[in-house]
Amino acid sequence: MTAAQLTLVQIDNYGPWTVTPEPRREMDLQTLQSRLFADMAQYIGNRGGYVFFTRFDNMVAVTNGLDRRDHELLQESVGNRYPVTVSLGVGVDEVPIEALETATERVQAAGSAQSSDRSEVLAGEFHGGDAADDVHIAHFDVNDATGKYTDRLNEFDSFINIEQGYASLMKYMREEHGALSFFVGGDNVIAACPDLSHDEYMGAIDHVAADADVQLKVGVGSGATPHEAGFAAKHALEDCRYEGTLVEFA
Amino acid sequence: MTAAQLTLVQIDNYGPWTVTPEPRREMDLQTLQSRLFADMAQYIGNRGGYVFFTRFDNMVAVTNGLDRRDHELLQESVGNRYPVTVSLGVGVDEVPIEALETATERVQAAGSAQSSDRSEVLAGEFHGGDAADDVHIAHFDVNDATGKYTDRLNEFDSFINIEQGYASLMKYMREEHGALSFFVGGDNVIAACPDLSHDEYMGAIDHVAADADVQLKVGVGSGATPHEAGFAAKHALEDCRYEGTLVEFA
Amino acid sequence: MTAAQLTLVQIDNYGPWTVTPEPRREMDLQTLQSRLFADMAQYIGNRGGYVFFTRFDNMVAVTNGLDRRDHELLQESVGNRYPVTVSLGVGVDEVPIEALETATERVQAAGSAQSSDRSEVLAGEFHGGDAADDVHIAHFDVNDATGKYTDRLNEFDSFINIEQGYASLMKYMREEHGALSFFVGGDNVIAACPDLSHDEYMGAIDHVAADADVQLKVGVGSGATPHEAGFAAKHALEDCRYEGTLVEFA
Amino acid sequence: MTAAQLTLVQIDNYGPWTVTPEPRREMDLQTLQSRLFADMAQYIGNRGGYVFFTRFDNMVAVTNGLDRRDHELLQESVGNRYPVTVSLGVGVDEVPIEALETATERVQAAGSAQSSDRSEVLAGEFHGGDAADDVHIAHFDVNDATGKYTDRLNEFDSFINIEQGYASLMKYMREEHGALSFFVGGDNVIAACPDLSHDEYMGAIDHVAADADVQLKVGVGSGATPHEAGFAAKHALEDCRYEGTLVEFA
Repeated sequence: MTAAQLTLVQIDNYGPWTVTPEPRREMDLQTLQSRLFADMAQYIGNRGGYVFFTRFDNMVAVTNGLDRRDHELLQESVGNRYPVTVSLGVGVDEVPIEALETATERVQAAGSAQSSDRSEVLAGEFHGGDAADDVHIAHFDVNDATGKYTDRLNEFDSFINIEQGYASLMKYMREEHGALSFFVGGDNVIAACPDLSHDEYMGAIDHVAADADVQLKVGVGSGATPHEAGFAAKHALEDCRYEGTLVEFA
Repeated sequence: MTAAQLTLVQIDNYGPWTVTPEPRREMDLQTLQSRLFADMAQYIGNRGGYVFFTRFDNMVAVTNGLDRRDHELLQESVGNRYPVTVSLGVGVDEVPIEALETATERVQAAGSAQSSDRSEVLAGEFHGGDAADDVHIAHFDVNDATGKYTDRLNEFDSFINIEQGYASLMKYMREEHGALSFFVGGDNVIAACPDLSHDEYMGAIDHVAADADVQLKVGVGSGATPHEAGFAAKHALEDCRYEGTLVEFA
Repeated sequence: MTAAQLTLVQIDNYGPWTVTPEPRREMDLQTLQSRLFADMAQYIGNRGGYVFFTRFDNMVAVTNGLDRRDHELLQESVGNRYPVTVSLGVGVDEVPIEALETATERVQAAGSAQSSDRSEVLAGEFHGGDAADDVHIAHFDVNDATGKYTDRLNEFDSFINIEQGYASLMKYMREEHGALSFFVGGDNVIAACPDLSHDEYMGAIDHVAADADVQLKVGVGSGATPHEAGFAAKHALEDCRYEGTLVEFA
Repeated sequence: MTAAQLTLVQIDNYGPWTVTPEPRREMDLQTLQSRLFADMAQYIGNRGGYVFFTRFDNMVAVTNGLDRRDHELLQESVGNRYPVTVSLGVGVDEVPIEALETATERVQAAGSAQSSDRSEVLAGEFHGGDAADDVHIAHFDVNDATGKYTDRLNEFDSFINIEQGYASLMKYMREEHGALSFFVGGDNVIAACPDLSHDEYMGAIDHVAADADVQLKVGVGSGATPHEAGFAAKHALEDCRYEGTLVEFA
C-alpha cells in the first residue's frame, strides 16, 4: 500500500526579495532558481528521492528515505550558500495530494510565503518504514515527439503541444486520482501516484488524446523510494517503446 | 520597429543519450539540465540577452546584442564542460515566432534532434543594429497569487492554477500576435512580443480570465536588448502594483 | 584510536583530455575542476566527510561514514554529468598517510592516471565502525593574517606568506607524523592527523615560525566523522582566539 | 610593451561571516568558495581574461579586455546570487606585481577586509588599448609528473613535490621579475609576466630544480588578452613536449 512522503520546499519571502531594493536582473534570478533546484536534485536524488521544480520558488519533492535529520541538513546547507533560506513541510499519505496538503498546511501555519518574520520552518512527520510498494511512479512521454514536433515545427509550437498535453494530464490525474504530475523536460512527465490500474492509466492517456490531441504512453514502477520506483518506470517505458504498447508496468 | 533576434539552443542527440546504455538517474538528468540552463542564463544574461528553459533539451533565447562570435564561444564552452553538446540556430524578425521559425529551420536542416551525426551546428543571421525599440518584453504576473493561492491551497493546486493560466496565455499570445510567452517561476510569465497596444494586452488578460479564471496584470517595456526591455517591463509591473492597474507601459 | 578512511579521487586520463584535440580554454578547465570539487564537497560533506582539492585532478577525501554504495553512487553521478569520469581508491589506517598510500596503490594497480583503458576504478576496503575518536582533525590559521598581511600587503605578497607557511607545515606534518595538511582558503589549513599531543602541535607551530616566519595557531578535535572532528576543531580554534593561546583541544 | 590590467577580487568581511553566529560547515564554505571562483572563471574567461583562485577569499585576475561596466556587472551578479558580496580593485602596469599593488591599495583604502562597513568597493583605472603584446603568459608544467609522481607515489607525496616546486617558483618569479605565478591544478602553473627573455625563464627553471628538486618546462605566449597569450603559451608548451626542450616561445 502506497505511503508517499511529500516535502514542500518554499523559499522564504522570495517575491519581495526579488524586487528589493529594486527589481533584480531576471537572468540572475533564473540562475539562482535553477541552481537551487539542481542542488536539491543532487541532495534529495542521491538519497533516493525525487524533486520537481514546479514553480521554482515552491518545489515539490517525494522524499521517502529522507528523515528529519536529512531535511535539517538540507536547510542548513542552503542557508550557508544562498542569499535566501527555505522552509520545509513534510506529510505522509497513501494519496500524494493528501500528503502534500498536509505538508503545505504545516508551512502555511507558520506564516505567509511573503512574511519577513517566517524563516526556515521545518515541520512535519516522517515515514518510518520502507515497504517495497510505498512509492508508485509513472513516467509518461509523448509518442514520437521528435518526428511529430521537434524535427518539424518551430520550437515554440512544439512546446505548445507538449505543454497543452501536460496541462491536460496534470489536471486529470490530480482530480481523478490525487496524483501529482510534473513536466521534467523534453516530452517527459513524471507522476507520483497512488496504486492505479492499467485501465486507469489508459483512461488518462485517452483523456489527453481527446482533450489536447497529444498521444502519450506510460511506464509504471513501484519501490521503497522514488528512485527505485522511477527507475523501474523508465525501464517499463522502454518496454512500451519496443513493444509498441501504451501502458507497461515494471 | 521590433527586430528580435531569436536563438534556438538544442542539445544534440539528447533523448538517446539519456537512455544509453540504460536509463540514467533522473535526478542526475535534472541536475544536468538545470545547470546547463543556469550557465546559459549567466552567459546570455550578462550580455543583455534573455534565455528561457522551455523544454530544457530545447531552450529559446532572445539574443539581441550577441553576435556570431558570442554564439561560437558559448558552444565551445558547453562542449568543454558537459557530456553533451549544443546546436544553435539564429533568426531575426519583427515578429518573434517568425524569427524562431527561421532559427529552428536552420538547425532542423542540418539533421534530426536525435541524429548521432549532427553535432554543434551553428547557423543563422545576426542582427547588426541596436535600435531602442528592437525588443519588446511583457512581464505578466498573477494578481495576489500569494493571498489567493500560495498561502491558501496546497502547492500542487496553486501550481495547477498558475499552469492553466500560463497554458492559456502562451497559446493566445502565439496565435493572435506571434509572441512567445515563457513561465519563469512563481507566478511570472515573460513574453517576447511584437509592438502591441494597450488594448491588445488587455485582450490577452481578458482572454485568460475568461478561459482559465486567472487574473493577470502586465508591465511592458522596450529596449535595444532584452535586459533593457525586460527591466523597464519589471518597473512597469511595479507601477501596476502601486496603481492597481492591469496594463502599464514603461 | 584513530581509524581514518581516506579516499583518493582521480580524474581518469585527464591530462590528455585537456589537450585533445587541441588545448582547451584554460578558464573552462578551471570551471570544470572547481565545480567538480564543489560537487564532491557537497556529496561527501553532507555525509559527514571532508574532501580537499589538492591538485584538482587528484583530490583527497577523509570519508569515515561513507560506505561502498556511497562511493559507487558518487562515481555514477559524476559520470552522468561531466565529460570526464573518476576513479576511487579507499584505504583505512591509524595513520592518514598510510591509509592514503593504500588508497593510491589500489588505483595505480589498475592502470596509469593517463591510460585511456582505465576508467571508473573503485577499489578498497571500508571502515565498518564509527568510534568517537576515529578521526582527528586539526584546524590551523595564521595569527592576525588580516592585520599583518591582507590589509597591508598586495594580495600576491600576502599569498606568498601564507603559501610558504603552508608549504613548510605540510612537509613537517607529513614527515614527522604522517598527517595530511590541506590549504582550504584564506589563512586556513585543515589537517587529518593521527592522535597527537599538545607538545607535538606546538612543535609544528614552532617549526613553521622558525622555517617560514609565519605564526600559526591550531584547534584540534576528534569525532566519528571528519565533520564532527572538524567542527570541534573550529570551536577549539575560536577558543585560541579568545584566550590568546596557540593550541587548544576541543 | 606589457600593460597588464590586474583585478583584485576580495570577498567583503568574509572571515567574520564564516564563524557567525557560529562556525559554518566547512564543506559548505568549500562549495561556496569554489563555485564563486567557477563563476568568476566563466565570466572573466569568456571575455578573454584569466582569474586565479589564490586564497579563494581573495582572487587575482588578469582582466585586459574588461572595462568598468564589465566589473560593475560582475559585482552586481555576485550580489544577486550569493550570501556574500565582493570588492574589486583594478590597476594597470608594465609589471604585474605593480599593477596588483595599485589594485590592492585601492581596496585597502576603502576599509579593512574584515570591516562590516565596507561593501562592494569598485575602484581603479582601466587599460584602454589592446596592443598585441599587452599580456605575457607563461605556462609551466612538471616534466613527466605522471611517470615520476602520480603513478608512483601516494597522492599526498606527489602533491608535496608539486607544491614545493610551486612555492619555490612563485617566490623566485615575484622577487626577480615581479611576475605572478599561480598553481592551476595537476602539475600546472600559469604566470602573468613582464617581457622576459629565454635566459630569464631558464634561470627560473634552474632555480626550482636546484631549490626544490622539481624539473619544470615552460611555454610562453603574448597577446592582447590573457586568453590569447595563454593559448599561445599552451601551444608553446606542447612544442616543448614534442621537441624535448625546456623553454619555448609561441
